[in-house]
Amino acid sequence: MKLLIRNAYVITVTGTEFVGDIAVDGARISHVGPTGSVPEGFEPDETIDATAKAATPGLVNCHTHAAMTLFRGYADDLPLMEWLTQKVWPIEAKLTGDDIYWGSLLAGLEMLKSGTTTFADQYFEMDRVAQAVEEIGLRASLCRGLIGVAPRADQVLAESLEFVRAWHGAAGGRITAMLGPHAPYTCPPAYLEKVLAAADELGVGLHIHLAETRTEIEQIKQEYGCSPIELMERINLFERPVLAAHCVHLSETDIEILARRGVGVAHNPQSNMKLGSGIAPVARMLAAGVNVGIGTDGAASNNDLNMVEEMRTAALLQKVALEDPTVLPAGRALEMATVGGARALGLDGEIGTLEMGKRADIVLWNLNQAHLSPAHNLQAHLVYSASRADVDTVIVNGRVLMRDRRVLTVDEERVLREAGRCARRLVSAVSSA
Amino acid sequence: MKLLIRNAYVITVTGTEFVGDIAVDGARISHVGPTGSVPEGFEPDETIDATAKAATPGLVNCHTHAAMTLFRGYADDLPLMEWLTQKVWPIEAKLTGDDIYWGSLLAGLEMLKSGTTTFADQYFEMDRVAQAVEEIGLRASLCRGLIGVAPRADQVLAESLEFVRAWHGAAGGRITAMLGPHAPYTCPPAYLEKVLAAADELGVGLHIHLAETRTEIEQIKQEYGCSPIELMERINLFERPVLAAHCVHLSETDIEILARRGVGVAHNPQSNMKLGSGIAPVARMLAAGVNVGIGTDGAASNNDLNMVEEMRTAALLQKVALEDPTVLPAGRALEMATVGGARALGLDGEIGTLEMGKRADIVLWNLNQAHLSPAHNLQAHLVYSASRADVDTVIVNGRVLMRDRRVLTVDEERVLREAGRCARRLVSAVSSA
Repeated sequence: MKLLIRNAYVITVTGTEFVGDIAVDGARISHVGPTGSVPEGFEPDETIDATAKAATPGLVNCHTHAAMTLFRGYADDLPLMEWLTQKVWPIEAKLTGDDIYWGSLLAGLEMLKSGTTTFADQYFEMDRVAQAVEEIGLRASLCRGLIGVAPRADQVLAESLEFVRAWHGAAGGRITAMLGPHAPYTCPPAYLEKVLAAADELGVGLHIHLAETRTEIEQIKQEYGCSPIELMERINLFERPVLAAHCVHLSETDIEILARRGVGVAHNPQSNMKLGSGIAPVARMLAAGVNVGIGTDGAASNNDLNMVEEMRTAALLQKVALEDPTVLPAGRALEMATVGGARALGLDGEIGTLEMGKRADIVLWNLNQAHLSPAHNLQAHLVYSASRADVDTVIVNGRVLMRDRRVLTVDEERVLREAGRCARRLVSAVSSA
Repeated sequence: MKLLIRNAYVITVTGTEFVGDIAVDGARISHVGPTGSVPEGFEPDETIDATAKAATPGLVNCHTHAAMTLFRGYADDLPLMEWLTQKVWPIEAKLTGDDIYWGSLLAGLEMLKSGTTTFADQYFEMDRVAQAVEEIGLRASLCRGLIGVAPRADQVLAESLEFVRAWHGAAGGRITAMLGPHAPYTCPPAYLEKVLAAADELGVGLHIHLAETRTEIEQIKQEYGCSPIELMERINLFERPVLAAHCVHLSETDIEILARRGVGVAHNPQSNMKLGSGIAPVARMLAAGVNVGIGTDGAASNNDLNMVEEMRTAALLQKVALEDPTVLPAGRALEMATVGGARALGLDGEIGTLEMGKRADIVLWNLNQAHLSPAHNLQAHLVYSASRADVDTVIVNGRVLMRDRRVLTVDEERVLREAGRCARRLVSAVSSA
């Protein structure tokens, strides 16, 4: 399948921006250049006229728990521990594989319709998440969440290995897998050692929550006399690729470790705001050379999976935290939401920019709108003014998944209906328990 | 004209929520109640089936400079003084009445398409702003910005009086007028005294910027030995209705004054974030009984006029500032964006809730979307998950201005085209100056 995108405002996220064409051959970009520059002899099966549209790399959501879309709006504005122990955990305990499948499809639909082409997910029943990813056509880095202090911890780790063996590299390379030790306070060092050995055996990275709340910092400090990041450094966790979600409360030493070890950080500004966790020192991390991507976290704490708004929030939150309007300018935020995220997931060789040879994960944005007018600065518009609904067309791995906002891979109405059915059943199961 | 809205999820913002009908007779709501409760004999000229839609009061944007949409994306991520003196002021100096008209229509179009039905504007060439408001059909509280330290200060005040006399109560009551002394640091007490005398003569309120930046606080402190709020209290400015924009940096005394005097505060979270001004103590103000509405500020510092996102940002920003997820819950944020804003503008007798006798300023939201599913909690969905494009139908003063996202009062393409023309001319005028 050969696809030609014509006459777009191309933002490559490699530092260039021009009106031009993108040629896609199979799953990869075979050419990007000014209008009319596509090599003679390229015979597209399909041509998209992208006049008055911007073309960018697909957005990369570095941290989520997709199936938690089923809990969107189920419990808000509560103290953290009450929210977790009295709302989230009880309803999570009722989740079936069917719920996870439909919740993940609902998440996938929402992400697709807001320009996310790749997401990093940590949850359970990951076979069903992978099935949803395979069907909707997105790219995903998936891992089973591992709780070392839970009863079946070793068995779950064994199942996790099976998942990695079954799905790493599946769906035409769209699905990659990791191991997902949940956090230092749920996975003691002895358990983490087992996870690390397994990761090395499989040759995959880790996706872990780190330094999210002050409570976690205090707890680890009390138990181990150091910060969560220092504890992970002590057990050599960072010797392999690591995607670390949150990293809100960090010392200068922590930041130095994250930079030196090449850890990918998933910054989740709206979740950190909504849960009152704090403001991550993103500008300091970037200045120290830490690789920071952006994520939404799950829909129970955001409450949506909208990377368009998340990149805006990331920029605005740093500016106000430092009372400095110059930090995290628009272009830097767009980088974080694309190639920064790709790097955090270890996928920057394949995705994250619009360049020849990369996978064709492309978003077309409809610029012909009041809130994106006049056209002074497209990158500023995408970061500071755009909405999810401006995402017009989404291509992943060379395949058009949405065109003119019409989703081509799944039946939208059916996903909404089935996810609604699952959510109602879960609520009634919890309230009758 | 009689209008019937049937079978909506009605959120009245008076504490009730039900599936029901809204009857509109002329400019006002004649009935709100459960489905089927509309009195017999009400014969609608038009019926809107609002199944699977939410109905809320229109959003109230408490502070903006509408025509600054022409500068959207023109200058971002710069130090405040460089942004103002080298970018904003030079291009503002080139604005013509024609620019103001098209820029205001562009703003009106953007606000209409994102569910804002009323806005409070402070700018210049206000006759042209009023003309735009009259044409597009929105409700607005308008004032000419007054700079006491500028050369023609007295003449501009005189023109401002003419504007109030010509437009206060115009357009079927949709346009109200105020006097707009810009800020304490641009309007010394002697000039403010003249403005106050004029306001009392006209019987209108004031719209002023207060306590926006640390620089302002220091400057007023140095010159007058007190805070901006205390200075205003000293000259009895708060003895009449006042809409105070920003109020970011406040002492406990300041908050006590704002509460006791019934000042309406326009909180502009995204502008305060983007300019690095700081985080307003909204939760403390609300606890003290201050009436706080929400605004976007102008598009040069936001960069959009999207109240849907602004109410979300208001809620999230307070939670993270206080590291407390329980502050500013969803319902409270929705109140601030509707009836709180109406109160801040002195219009809560007329708008801000869905109640019999109030003006029919109504927004219908399309709920049938992935990011608003499942339907656990509609208020949480509107505040934490909705986007501007979910706004489906907008009614102001009983007139349908947008239906199924089609704007009925102005030619959208023409507004975008003309505003683009104005913006290009302005940029070229500035660069050749």
